[in-house]
Amino acid sequence: MTTAKKIAARNSTKAVLSKESDTSSPPTIGGYLIQRLQDYGLKDMFGIPGDFVLGFYGLLEDSPIRMIGCTREDCAGYAADAYARIHGLGAVCVTYCVGGLSTCNSIAGAFAEKSPVVVISGAPGVYERRNDPLLHHRVRDFGTQREVFEKIAIANADLHDPLTAFREIDRCLDAAVRYKRPVYLELPRDRVHSPAIAPHSPLAFERESHPDALKAAIGEARERIAKAKQPVILAGIEVHRFGLREQILELAEQNQIPMCATLLGKSVISERHPLYLGVYEGAMGRREVSEYVENSDCLIMLGAFMTDINLGIFTAKLDAQNCISATTEQLRIGHHHFHDVLFEDFVNTLQDSPIRPDAETIEIPKRQVLKKSKSTDEDAVTIQSLFGHIDQILDDNMVVIADVGDSLFASSDLTIHKHTEYLSPAYYTSMGFAVPAALGVQTADKNLRPIVLVGDGAFQMTCMELSSIVRNHFNPIVVVLNNKGYTTERFLQEGPFNDILNWNYHRIPDLFGAGWGFEVTTLGELKQSMAAALAHKDAFSLLNVHLEPNDISPALERLAEKMSQTL
Amino acid sequence: MTTAKKIAARNSTKAVLSKESDTSSPPTIGGYLIQRLQDYGLKDMFGIPGDFVLGFYGLLEDSPIRMIGCTREDCAGYAADAYARIHGLGAVCVTYCVGGLSTCNSIAGAFAEKSPVVVISGAPGVYERRNDPLLHHRVRDFGTQREVFEKIAIANADLHDPLTAFREIDRCLDAAVRYKRPVYLELPRDRVHSPAIAPHSPLAFERESHPDALKAAIGEARERIAKAKQPVILAGIEVHRFGLREQILELAEQNQIPMCATLLGKSVISERHPLYLGVYEGAMGRREVSEYVENSDCLIMLGAFMTDINLGIFTAKLDAQNCISATTEQLRIGHHHFHDVLFEDFVNTLQDSPIRPDAETIEIPKRQVLKKSKSTDEDAVTIQSLFGHIDQILDDNMVVIADVGDSLFASSDLTIHKHTEYLSPAYYTSMGFAVPAALGVQTADKNLRPIVLVGDGAFQMTCMELSSIVRNHFNPIVVVLNNKGYTTERFLQEGPFNDILNWNYHRIPDLFGAGWGFEVTTLGELKQSMAAALAHKDAFSLLNVHLEPNDISPALERLAEKMSQTL
Repeated sequence: MTTAKKIAARNSTKAVLSKESDTSSPPTIGGYLIQRLQDYGLKDMFGIPGDFVLGFYGLLEDSPIRMIGCTREDCAGYAADAYARIHGLGAVCVTYCVGGLSTCNSIAGAFAEKSPVVVISGAPGVYERRNDPLLHHRVRDFGTQREVFEKIAIANADLHDPLTAFREIDRCLDAAVRYKRPVYLELPRDRVHSPAIAPHSPLAFERESHPDALKAAIGEARERIAKAKQPVILAGIEVHRFGLREQILELAEQNQIPMCATLLGKSVISERHPLYLGVYEGAMGRREVSEYVENSDCLIMLGAFMTDINLGIFTAKLDAQNCISATTEQLRIGHHHFHDVLFEDFVNTLQDSPIRPDAETIEIPKRQVLKKSKSTDEDAVTIQSLFGHIDQILDDNMVVIADVGDSLFASSDLTIHKHTEYLSPAYYTSMGFAVPAALGVQTADKNLRPIVLVGDGAFQMTCMELSSIVRNHFNPIVVVLNNKGYTTERFLQEGPFNDILNWNYHRIPDLFGAGWGFEVTTLGELKQSMAAALAHKDAFSLLNVHLEPNDISPALERLAEKMSQTL
Repeated sequence: MTTAKKIAARNSTKAVLSKESDTSSPPTIGGYLIQRLQDYGLKDMFGIPGDFVLGFYGLLEDSPIRMIGCTREDCAGYAADAYARIHGLGAVCVTYCVGGLSTCNSIAGAFAEKSPVVVISGAPGVYERRNDPLLHHRVRDFGTQREVFEKIAIANADLHDPLTAFREIDRCLDAAVRYKRPVYLELPRDRVHSPAIAPHSPLAFERESHPDALKAAIGEARERIAKAKQPVILAGIEVHRFGLREQILELAEQNQIPMCATLLGKSVISERHPLYLGVYEGAMGRREVSEYVENSDCLIMLGAFMTDINLGIFTAKLDAQNCISATTEQLRIGHHHFHDVLFEDFVNTLQDSPIRPDAETIEIPKRQVLKKSKSTDEDAVTIQSLFGHIDQILDDNMVVIADVGDSLFASSDLTIHKHTEYLSPAYYTSMGFAVPAALGVQTADKNLRPIVLVGDGAFQMTCMELSSIVRNHFNPIVVVLNNKGYTTERFLQEGPFNDILNWNYHRIPDLFGAGWGFEVTTLGELKQSMAAALAHKDAFSLLNVHLEPNDISPALERLAEKMSQTL
């Protein structure tokens, strides 16, 4: 099975309902939680122990689930998010408040970008809480952490009561997979080994579309597509999250409809597919893609979210009347909204049979690839020559992980060979995602080799997670775009607050006692270092690529111009 | 003025009300906020810029407030917390969600331990929010971040309306200083320059005790103290936060009452004072202190919080009938509770005149100091010889910053020369506090030289903040207690999850291009390295002190034994 197929298979995450094997010894809350996570295919978990969660860690240690220790909890959150993007479900296990509250930002990012992460937090025992004592790690009262997670998780539960805990676990895990968003489970330490009070079988949550609404929507959509002169598919991140890639390809190929992707959804479909146009980003993206999409009389948006960066800071010129837009949150055809139609039912039914049976093989605008830089080996590396070179070395087993800034914007022009081999926080845009995400990706599949593109500012935020990468013998290639500060912001408002210390990033292997470091100033050095990094498969490599503070990609230039208007 | 006096002066933080200097140009929301922070004596702020807060950063840049850039927002939160502990008020300024939500844990710690930190977050403009768009950094809706901070801040405000924003700023800043807890201010980016709609003068918030309640409480307290055979003062953290140290000393000296401190309040009073007994921690602390306190017929607890670690995991044997307990949250004498009496009024009035005018100079149990280790220079360093040596090199200009674990527990036996020269997260116990706290301390007072005691696990969490320490030419001495993992937890539940990578911590100066690194295995090397570190005043020094994974202080041994019972 190819890597691509493995990923697709994983992403149709459904729980295999476990049967009660032995009614004579009722399951415990902790044991049941671990069993249910395995039913959903979870194999690894990220986190840091602490006294309020140590009992559950002991239980995990005896289970088949592998615990990946991290240096910080927020990094564990990012790693679990990336793991979920590859594997279909991720989990992080931390201690009370000092651990859980440290994950707020990475979990908020998973919420925003629809990544199903289960947050498991230990908590003071129910028995300890009598008389309301000031236990360590407590903030305002014992409910504080859960109240915070109510705001950034799609479902949450306090597993303090053995009567309700088992069904609460079922409910929350179902919500994570159903809505592809984080859920929060709080497990008081004296409840880890509490047995079920009543017999419990895992609950099944079935949902279905209203058959008439589905029929009406499909009829209308097929009619529009059949009549259209220039239909286009815009594929978004939910196509990946719900494992619907094959169906989208079928729809496109059967009916000869060209496809493009949002930036957040980049690589949802292979960028080498003959029907692939490129990334659509309104005025920020490539002109030929924007024109093709905006001139379409039937734009089929599937699982695509209309965020500001996806839409080139709202420069997209899309006429709702000409759009079919389906996500898990809404289904809209022109100005008709349909309720009670599941996203996956809509996609599956739409591609059931050919809509344009006589469709001829169409000609689409030739996709521009990154121009080969005219630089010579002696020239200083530029954003253009850097990305040009990276584009050339990408192969089938690589996954590009782009952090925020030009790591993200410039990389939108890279050609991803297969699919789902490009990860980025393109909507929530939290700096520091990429290095811990590499840990998550290789935990999910050690054979996927990450190329991590990260600015110096973002690298300083979470670089210590390379420590966990060393511990696990993973081998990402980390490219630090060292432009001496927060370059994106320099183009919005310059000031000394955009400066940061210029580290000897390539010396970081000395700190960890492992890894390969390279300092890169010329194109020749880049080629040499990258070749060495590709050859060193035993550990991470880091390329400290010196760039001019004002050297940016055309995409970032257009973005900055637009963003500075609303500052 | 001595450092000690300077700190005391700062901590009686009161705002100097600024007068409206020029009614012809009304102030703007951003400008007023900066002015009010200066009225409260704030000179520095910590943070990281981002597009939703760049406009306010520009305004700050033109103000006298110095902006200290950090590598991560949670580190900025810790630095602001430590700055507040020294200076009386701290502030952190970050961007929306990716910035603000990253500070949740450090701000929760400031809440738990009563440190007044103002969190200022940028936010999308009010105008941009029409039609509810999916702007980058958004989580659930535009209220998410503020709803989260409602749980971990004592007051919060959305400064979107120029009609209410000015009084909201007054209200929140007053709450921060009044309750010594964090407050949250959210400033939409299109409101930074919005002028006041109506003339506004800074609001004064006066509070006063009920005179009869105060009189009754003082009468009862004085009577008890006068009659007592063995009165003792237990000083807690609020004595420092409210600048009441001199009053406590007066009370003790006038009436010859011995004093001790809680662990969180350690160094609130000088540990060289002839009336000082030591740190009281129930069964966890030194026997002679515990016995003296628990045999007292009148224990005067001032600003002391009854947390589990302060009370030796609830091993303290205190009879409420024999206690006078005053904090900002309650006043209790025996079983009489008094309402409407301000903490500072109670303390000030209590020491107004001698209570035991004929008190003779008393003999208190001789305070044990750390025994000089019998190790020779060739012996491997142990926890005992390490802390013995640190105790010897402490001087008047040093501040000890203890992180969580044996850094905290073993350091409780150090003798702090003056006062408020010992900082630790002894209640909330969040690992990773110490390194960014050193940044905060030296920002508040460059002449205070921090000795940072930090375990290897905690160091890995926030060590990159040494980068900001390099940028600002600060010179803390960082002692990494390298015991190869989460040692405190090994004593609660051993497992591979307690192991971490053994970094070459002493090589970190190579990464930053500044600082001094030392690898230490023997006592002789410790002495040499520490002497060199003390001499190198130009940059930070780091001592990588190798310790056996199972070498712990007697205090931690007692704690672990107690804690493992409730696991």
